[in-house]
Amino acid sequence: MAEILQSHASGSGSPTKTAARVADAIAARGDDGTWLSTVPREQLLAAAEAIEQRPGARTLPLYGIPFGVKDSIDVAGVPTTLSCPDYAYIPEATAPVVQRLLDAGALYVGKTNLDQFATGLNGTRTPYTVPRSVYGNEMISGGSSSGSALTVALGQVPFAVATDTAGSGRVPAALNGVVGFKPSRGLISTVGLVPACKSLDCITVMAGSIDDTDRVLDVVVARDTRDSWSRDRGPRHDGRTIRVGLPASDELDFFGDDEMRAAHLGFRDRIHRTETIVDAPLAPFLAAGALLYSGPWVAERLVEFADFLAAEPDSIFPVVRDILRSGEEYTAVDAFAAQQKLQDLKAEVTRLWEDMDVLVVPTIGTTFTVDEVLARPIDCNTMLGHYTHFGNLLDLTGVAVPVGHAADGRPLSVMILGPALSDDTVLTLAARFLDEPRNPSPLPADAQHHHPASTNLTQEHS
Amino acid sequence: MAEILQSHASGSGSPTKTAARVADAIAARGDDGTWLSTVPREQLLAAAEAIEQRPGARTLPLYGIPFGVKDSIDVAGVPTTLSCPDYAYIPEATAPVVQRLLDAGALYVGKTNLDQFATGLNGTRTPYTVPRSVYGNEMISGGSSSGSALTVALGQVPFAVATDTAGSGRVPAALNGVVGFKPSRGLISTVGLVPACKSLDCITVMAGSIDDTDRVLDVVVARDTRDSWSRDRGPRHDGRTIRVGLPASDELDFFGDDEMRAAHLGFRDRIHRTETIVDAPLAPFLAAGALLYSGPWVAERLVEFADFLAAEPDSIFPVVRDILRSGEEYTAVDAFAAQQKLQDLKAEVTRLWEDMDVLVVPTIGTTFTVDEVLARPIDCNTMLGHYTHFGNLLDLTGVAVPVGHAADGRPLSVMILGPALSDDTVLTLAARFLDEPRNPSPLPADAQHHHPASTNLTQEHS
Repeated sequence: MAEILQSHASGSGSPTKTAARVADAIAARGDDGTWLSTVPREQLLAAAEAIEQRPGARTLPLYGIPFGVKDSIDVAGVPTTLSCPDYAYIPEATAPVVQRLLDAGALYVGKTNLDQFATGLNGTRTPYTVPRSVYGNEMISGGSSSGSALTVALGQVPFAVATDTAGSGRVPAALNGVVGFKPSRGLISTVGLVPACKSLDCITVMAGSIDDTDRVLDVVVARDTRDSWSRDRGPRHDGRTIRVGLPASDELDFFGDDEMRAAHLGFRDRIHRTETIVDAPLAPFLAAGALLYSGPWVAERLVEFADFLAAEPDSIFPVVRDILRSGEEYTAVDAFAAQQKLQDLKAEVTRLWEDMDVLVVPTIGTTFTVDEVLARPIDCNTMLGHYTHFGNLLDLTGVAVPVGHAADGRPLSVMILGPALSDDTVLTLAARFLDEPRNPSPLPADAQHHHPASTNLTQEHS
Repeated sequence: MAEILQSHASGSGSPTKTAARVADAIAARGDDGTWLSTVPREQLLAAAEAIEQRPGARTLPLYGIPFGVKDSIDVAGVPTTLSCPDYAYIPEATAPVVQRLLDAGALYVGKTNLDQFATGLNGTRTPYTVPRSVYGNEMISGGSSSGSALTVALGQVPFAVATDTAGSGRVPAALNGVVGFKPSRGLISTVGLVPACKSLDCITVMAGSIDDTDRVLDVVVARDTRDSWSRDRGPRHDGRTIRVGLPASDELDFFGDDEMRAAHLGFRDRIHRTETIVDAPLAPFLAAGALLYSGPWVAERLVEFADFLAAEPDSIFPVVRDILRSGEEYTAVDAFAAQQKLQDLKAEVTRLWEDMDVLVVPTIGTTFTVDEVLARPIDCNTMLGHYTHFGNLLDLTGVAVPVGHAADGRPLSVMILGPALSDDTVLTLAARFLDEPRNPSPLPADAQHHHPASTNLTQEHS
């Protein structure tokens, strides 16, 4: 992104040239399941030209940077499909997260594929073309933000907007070797997002680096009174040593995938030499995850989709339909009982943060091919979400970071998780894992107001 | 309480003399529905003597102060009945809130009556004797903490421990002319309390003054890792002007009770002259209350009582049984949908606190006789909870303050509500309403640690 901005600023490139390159790259792939709709080439070039004409265009923070949007988020005049053609509607308003990007000079390219209704981590639950990971070999792209991760991994756009309820913004990042950042709930407005589980949904960023992620966050993080979960960003990392929690290796499950186990443990060996490591129990995190995938939260999806499920069941992808229907089986007593258990786990996890700043786990324990997940859609989904299901239930922030490859060439991703509002700490460590320098701009004035102690602190990197 | 402590410290009185006086006062009333069990006279005197024998006894903060405990809270060896004899059990452990009082030198007197399973605000839902308000005329004592309020109002004990889920610690205080303080959720451990709605339940204090309330709070407020909702006390009030929000008078409902209306508006005239008043909308608060009494939270009671309801329905007071059964009708989708609406209201109310520090409303809009609530148990309950139902759902702190009488002699109570952890601000204003000086001791060291800016500030009273 820095290179594109530099070329646009210097005149060696331009938003229209970049737009043409993007259109060419997308066209060259044909229908590979990445995009559900794209701005037609001529319109894209015209939009790029319009950005160029804006007063002070070259000072815009995302001047001419192309991006994709997961197709559960509204862009005015473009169908929001949620990978369900019969559900699709054309919104009149653009979601504020997208509007802020447009206002910052970014170039909207199109809508990316997803597991229908953002339900699933497999990346195959779409009536459109099923995308494959950029790593090939029929490996899934992962879900639900399958297309958002893939377009970034393909180098078509430097970033894409996605979402994450149970792992949808992190699992596809892992499978495609890109950064998938799921901020603390409420940092990015969810207005204009069709809810999956409204109490858990997060807007996320897929990008190629932490620097790119930071640039996008600086534009899209903002309070929004129309989002009832909206809250202020936490303080910048204060430069102190980050205590990295690692579970005992025998607590980690790779589902029999010895290459992934070896690669992950190799990464752990590396950070054992460079980071301050503390022991972390994984059990309370996994217990919260179990509440999500075998508990009543699936019923929250019906707050949005019950009417459609009743009216047009045949329009819904069969696996997704079965999952939605399973939500009908839970009573309010089940919901309150599970929430009480979750509160116990939240309290337990809150105490763990007294002794560690972040938890580092695999983003995914193993990978699957398209055929494998089609054969066992629920089991594979459960395995893919093993390390991500608990994130939003426990009000964590998390980032999937590509840190190399397994011996057989598959991408290796680790996830850094921290308590709510420790986003900057998590990103600081992620940058270190990627050997990126990181000097984020100061927080905007409104956030500084809430965290006056943090504004004069500098970032330390080792 | 200060007088009793002074007499015990000086030797002009003693815990055993106080114990005898309490036993006499209780015996003189006979079975008036205040107590479900009391420590027999000889045992009570022995317990008082044992306190006297403790090393440094006279320095104990509650040395020889007698108190009652709502019979939904465990005292080891004493049956916890919840006003349901067939549900009763004898606990092995004493609830930490009670244990802290005992450790501070307080004298446990007995268990007070309540609406069965702490379900209701009427004070008549008990198979034991139905208590009447200390104000007589067959007026209800209110519920569910009917006996806790009454024993304090009768002057038998200076304070009692009660609970509040939907108003149970405030409505009976209003009907008996005493202080009923419902702290922010999590300040007092709920371990050893049989839950009503576990996510909403608070332990509360009934007392005759804010000074007495403060003395009890200083003993019982403490973090407890066994209570998953436990959290630290907020800062002391910093002496700044307290902006008092008052709803428009036509937003207030007195259910046709013109005497109570006149009395409440008279009180508002008084504080208009002494306080900084701002306009406050009542609608979002009442909307949250409506979610509670016509929404799925009743199902949360079944997390605790479903098994007993199924096994022994005839052991349950009929109105309470019907209420519990109504919880079976709600689905998990209902629960999540209501919680989403609540989140919207929470966000709306959070914004209101930018312009006001507290909200002042009637604690109850009207009063009822025992016969009236027996004839219309649900309607009367709904009216009694009009101003209290929303308190815990919106994570507020609140105190019912006796501020005089209606023209016909009935007690007038106003409720001061503030956002979570503004407990000290609410109590500061309550003391001012009662013309009490207030100089609470500094927060304990662990609380100071979290609020270093507040420790050197003095309290200002006008």
